[in-house]
Amino acid sequence: MEPIRIFITGGTFDKAYNELTGELFFKDSHLPEMLKLGRCNLDVQVRTLMMIDSLQMTDAGRRLILDRCLACPERRIVITHGTDTMENTAAVLGKGLAGKTVVLTGAMIPYEFGSSDGLFNLGTALAFVQTLPPGVYVAMNGRYFAWDNVRKNRELGIFEAADNNRH
Amino acid sequence: MEPIRIFITGGTFDKAYNELTGELFFKDSHLPEMLKLGRCNLDVQVRTLMMIDSLQMTDAGRRLILDRCLACPERRIVITHGTDTMENTAAVLGKGLAGKTVVLTGAMIPYEFGSSDGLFNLGTALAFVQTLPPGVYVAMNGRYFAWDNVRKNRELGIFEAADNNRH
Amino acid sequence: MEPIRIFITGGTFDKAYNELTGELFFKDSHLPEMLKLGRCNLDVQVRTLMMIDSLQMTDAGRRLILDRCLACPERRIVITHGTDTMENTAAVLGKGLAGKTVVLTGAMIPYEFGSSDGLFNLGTALAFVQTLPPGVYVAMNGRYFAWDNVRKNRELGIFEAADNNRH
Amino acid sequence: MEPIRIFITGGTFDKAYNELTGELFFKDSHLPEMLKLGRCNLDVQVRTLMMIDSLQMTDAGRRLILDRCLACPERRIVITHGTDTMENTAAVLGKGLAGKTVVLTGAMIPYEFGSSDGLFNLGTALAFVQTLPPGVYVAMNGRYFAWDNVRKNRELGIFEAADNNRH
Repeated sequence: MEPIRIFITGGTFDKAYNELTGELFFKDSHLPEMLKLGRCNLDVQVRTLMMIDSLQMTDAGRRLILDRCLACPERRIVITHGTDTMENTAAVLGKGLAGKTVVLTGAMIPYEFGSSDGLFNLGTALAFVQTLPPGVYVAMNGRYFAWDNVRKNRELGIFEAADNNRH
Repeated sequence: MEPIRIFITGGTFDKAYNELTGELFFKDSHLPEMLKLGRCNLDVQVRTLMMIDSLQMTDAGRRLILDRCLACPERRIVITHGTDTMENTAAVLGKGLAGKTVVLTGAMIPYEFGSSDGLFNLGTALAFVQTLPPGVYVAMNGRYFAWDNVRKNRELGIFEAADNNRH
Repeated sequence: MEPIRIFITGGTFDKAYNELTGELFFKDSHLPEMLKLGRCNLDVQVRTLMMIDSLQMTDAGRRLILDRCLACPERRIVITHGTDTMENTAAVLGKGLAGKTVVLTGAMIPYEFGSSDGLFNLGTALAFVQTLPPGVYVAMNGRYFAWDNVRKNRELGIFEAADNNRH
Repeated sequence: MEPIRIFITGGTFDKAYNELTGELFFKDSHLPEMLKLGRCNLDVQVRTLMMIDSLQMTDAGRRLILDRCLACPERRIVITHGTDTMENTAAVLGKGLAGKTVVLTGAMIPYEFGSSDGLFNLGTALAFVQTLPPGVYVAMNGRYFAWDNVRKNRELGIFEAADNNRH
């Protein structure tokens, strides 16, 4: 079984509700709990790189993610990321990486809400990362997209091929 | 986007609680709800073939599943199935099918229980079915197994390669 | 704040799913977790007397519950109990106790199922036990019933006054 | 069975997550769903008066709530309300109403989050409103408080008697 690295960067996935202020915030990642819930028996190493809303993701943040992907020994990497700028981070990784399979995924609804799509997406991401050839991909809505052909449709709240004719 | 067929056969996935008798039983499948929850945007056709505990699965039942896999136009098929005899059904399909990618999956905990692994497994199955070459596979615990090299470890409640040395 | 005793006897409330056998069974009580979830700030003492389906409740079991109600220092007692014979236990307590407020409650759906009525019922029982005069009551479906005027309607799965004209 | 009126005013109880903007907002009330989940069999009439965060509650809003409490035929009334200014609304009702039992309740965590205290609180409020004498009360944390002796402890996130010596 080939080892898989999971890098956590925050995003809706991990938003929690602060009952004293009534606001959403980031506490600890739910990833370990979700892997346990899914009875995941893969050889995964989880590391938190940052805990931010992807609207706050900077060039330096993306460079950090790229560096960690380059430096880690694993050739299969899943990254949890906010959906708003997931395609931008995917582009930075797509241009800077070779020889590794990287899958970015996220959620539209926080995991703490019962109706989260996060557990489903995590399942797809961990499956795609095992089977897709080297490259950088986004896994959302049950589908996977190459980093240079994906965009978030903000009206519908789904991901789609940037070039709908190609897909 | 290539169309995917989902065949439902029952299993723990779809067990519900009968509040009048206090027993578990099968009502309607939770699959459509789960696909919606996961915001799945794939081209899927869902069909219920039977609604049984896999300990009740007979040779005739397996033959029926094989026939439907052969007859349906889709070349990518996910089958939800009880875990107890999933490997047996996989073997019947593995010997009888060629040229299609078939992924069997299930759950250890009913979906209606909050702690279900079903949503995660469904995510992995739908991802594997899109990316694996033709063949028959079992998708459980985040992993996939070829039909001729899988068994349920009943003490641990997980799936593993039948030949642990090979994997 | 007057102290409240909670006696646990099992029932649907506390049924869990055994993923290795596929059957429902009793593990630890969910009461402490439910009280925490409800952010309950009452002075409660929780004690497990037994962990059984109420169809297995015997005369000796009911005598034990009565003895514990008589012996404990608290004058306000909540008892979690299976719904099938809740009215029988209530009758034993109603005839044997004086000067204490006792409220029996339960659930139609196990707490581990997301759709449990247990948390709601627990809330009503803890409120009724603080405000009702001494006597033995059943709290189900948002209502309370005196021990000598309650029955479970097995077709509808709800509790009602035994003498519908009186209520 | 005496009829009960439920007035909805919003509050954390009914906050939902807007997946397109990532913000919390008010959609429809979860009250009907919660009553169904609790298998509530009381004679209740639910009416939405407003859908606001209680920090936005104005004098005019409180006057409206008071008017509706005075005007409705029911003598037993539950009001769902944000926790931040619940004590202020309770005071307005306490001074303006006589002869009716009114119980305000709310939640620290939105109902859509699995860990909500709302279902528990709703259970206590519906029980207290049936058994407490006329007056205006706050029901939180399993307890009830008279309108002129309650405050939200903002550090702990719980309700307590304003005069801790009296209680």
